Amino acid sequence: VTSSDTFLETLSTTRAIRRFRPEDIDEEDLTRMFFAATRAPSASNRQNFRFLVLPRDGSARRARELLGAEYRRCWQAKSQRDGYDIAARDRQSRSGRMSSAMDAFVADFENIPLVVLPCLIRYKPASPLEGASVYPACQNLLLAARALGYGGVLTQWQVGVEPELRAELSIPDDIAIAGVIALGRPKGSHGPVRRLPLPQLVFESAWDRPAPWATDPDGARFSGAGPATARG
Amino acid sequence: VTSSDTFLETLSTTRAIRRFRPEDIDEEDLTRMFFAATRAPSASNRQNFRFLVLPRDGSARRARELLGAEYRRCWQAKSQRDGYDIAARDRQSRSGRMSSAMDAFVADFENIPLVVLPCLIRYKPASPLEGASVYPACQNLLLAARALGYGGVLTQWQVGVEPELRAELSIPDDIAIAGVIALGRPKGSHGPVRRLPLPQLVFESAWDRPAPWATDPDGARFSGAGPATARG
Repeated sequence: VTSSDTFLETLSTTRAIRRFRPEDIDEEDLTRMFFAATRAPSASNRQNFRFLVLPRDGSARRARELLGAEYRRCWQAKSQRDGYDIAARDRQSRSGRMSSAMDAFVADFENIPLVVLPCLIRYKPASPLEGASVYPACQNLLLAARALGYGGVLTQWQVGVEPELRAELSIPDDIAIAGVIALGRPKGSHGPVRRLPLPQLVFESAWDRPAPWATDPDGARFSGAGPATARG
Repeated sequence: VTSSDTFLETLSTTRAIRRFRPEDIDEEDLTRMFFAATRAPSASNRQNFRFLVLPRDGSARRARELLGAEYRRCWQAKSQRDGYDIAARDRQSRSGRMSSAMDAFVADFENIPLVVLPCLIRYKPASPLEGASVYPACQNLLLAARALGYGGVLTQWQVGVEPELRAELSIPDDIAIAGVIALGRPKGSHGPVRRLPLPQLVFESAWDRPAPWATDPDGARFSGAGPATARG
């Protein structure tokens, strides 16, 4: 096992964590995580990404409460719309387990060990391409967290409370809020990362033409894509 | 040195590579890189990211030529607009070195060992937030490449030739082209990753209020942000 094997193994097994143990993240680990996150690339190396950390206590509490209420509202709506409420009746199914993890995630949102708003300073009009300057840094943060024994998830249900959140945290209008990252020590085991078969994800020379070398390794675990209803 | 130290070190030293040695990427390494890339998260785990690989030879050649011509045009325009053409007169300055790396990058675009179009299947209207479902996978790809001894860069100058590129590669209208990733064996040394000081990038509890624990480690290298003119 070489160091590149270990690196790829960590990359390939970092999955969304939505249940957290109660303890805080060590300050030294926070420093290391955010240093690694901010080494990520951005367009023209403008480094226009920023991370706004919301601790559990202190003056960020109100922002946490705004988000918590909105996350509970959004999850209830999505759960009904996408069939997770029905899927949840089978607690052994993947959709059922996902549903119960989400229930816990939103119920205790205010007490997630760390909540982080990844932000982007806009120097030109909003665009679907601008995420290239903030989401690589988000992924670095989640990977660095994993390497240090933590876990987390990037979510985007802040949209419905953005005006209140901006006012509460003094976020100027030209700053985009790219999402909400939850971080902490995982509760329970990570479980495998499952994805679609590689030939469905990697093409060569034309759209929808599978790359001949894009084959899954032995033991790869597969899943359908998307919410419960999409899985039939 | 623990494995988490090694992991964070690799995360923190992965930088944009724009000069490549001529050799192809081993097929086995390609498989591993794209497997790791596609373990990245996406909104609701829809896995709506796709990678379309453009080899140097064969039927993707015409798409390479379209991109190559456009990249030369875009770099010439940016070079003048952002003052890289003037910065280039001092070949020892950072802007001057960047400028000469870009000259080589666009001049030999058609022969970059691997060119990849990261794409996104849109299931709802285009949005600045949608990048959360494709740029984490791009970052995983660049990190996996680095771990295996390769390097690369994510760029976004495809916009000006999108209609021709879509026609050439049969990319449907509901697919967003998120950028263009170049990959290969780096020519020369990597050089350090330089960023703004951490207190300028990480805030706590309110916008622009530096997090007290956000301090750079000894030996961190700093840089200004953005193009040559922005640096004065």
